[in-house]
Amino acid sequence: MTFALHPRLEADTFFIADWPLCRVLLMNDARYPWLILVPRRGGITELMDLAADDRILLTDEIARAGGIVRGRPGVTKVNVGALGNLVPQLHVHVLGRYPGDPAWPGPVWGHGQAVSYETSARDALIAAVRSL
Amino acid sequence: MTFALHPRLEADTFFIADWPLCRVLLMNDARYPWLILVPRRGGITELMDLAADDRILLTDEIARAGGIVRGRPGVTKVNVGALGNLVPQLHVHVLGRYPGDPAWPGPVWGHGQAVSYETSARDALIAAVRSL
Repeated sequence: MTFALHPRLEADTFFIADWPLCRVLLMNDARYPWLILVPRRGGITELMDLAADDRILLTDEIARAGGIVRGRPGVTKVNVGALGNLVPQLHVHVLGRYPGDPAWPGPVWGHGQAVSYETSARDALIAAVRSL
Repeated sequence: MTFALHPRLEADTFFIADWPLCRVLLMNDARYPWLILVPRRGGITELMDLAADDRILLTDEIARAGGIVRGRPGVTKVNVGALGNLVPQLHVHVLGRYPGDPAWPGPVWGHGQAVSYETSARDALIAAVRSL
């Protein structure tokens, strides 16, 4: 089965890069530095359905994304989640948190309304992630 | 730094087993089949701070736990999360979800009040996990 990004992910994010396994996306929510990793494999909904080699790649890429969001200003904690209750295509959220952020200390998913990026801030962040 | 379970995890869970990397715990919330994996390494708060070999083990154990919760009655989706906003010790939630569960389709963390297990149900579930 070929890889195609789920329309909901397509609508809610901006493309950053393709890493060895995953398409790396920026969530269009300026409240948090928020990356989404989507393994470029068709028809996968659960982590445990990835091949063992792909699971290792995914883990490396989660760690890489975690290092990037941890390096953003103010971030004190990284949150990682693979839920998929609304979008079944396997995707992993990797985002930076800090005490006092809008959803702190709760999870970000389903909390409040996303705040869209201004174009210049979005482009600067995408460029920063690509440079790492 | 030696491993010691965070008191909050100790209070909220039951011991199931020690796998090669992780202590495996049952969350004391009968609303969901909910395992927590805690790498038995001291002083680690983020996935990316685990050694590369440990990250591979953790990924294997997440997949193993995911297979177990997916096999529980009614489960249609597995949620995996490493948040740590309240309990900094690295721990990974692996739990089973289904449309119509109390928090569906939102995340379980911070949603409603935990429902404690009856002793017999708890012991049966722990025994079932240990047998897999």
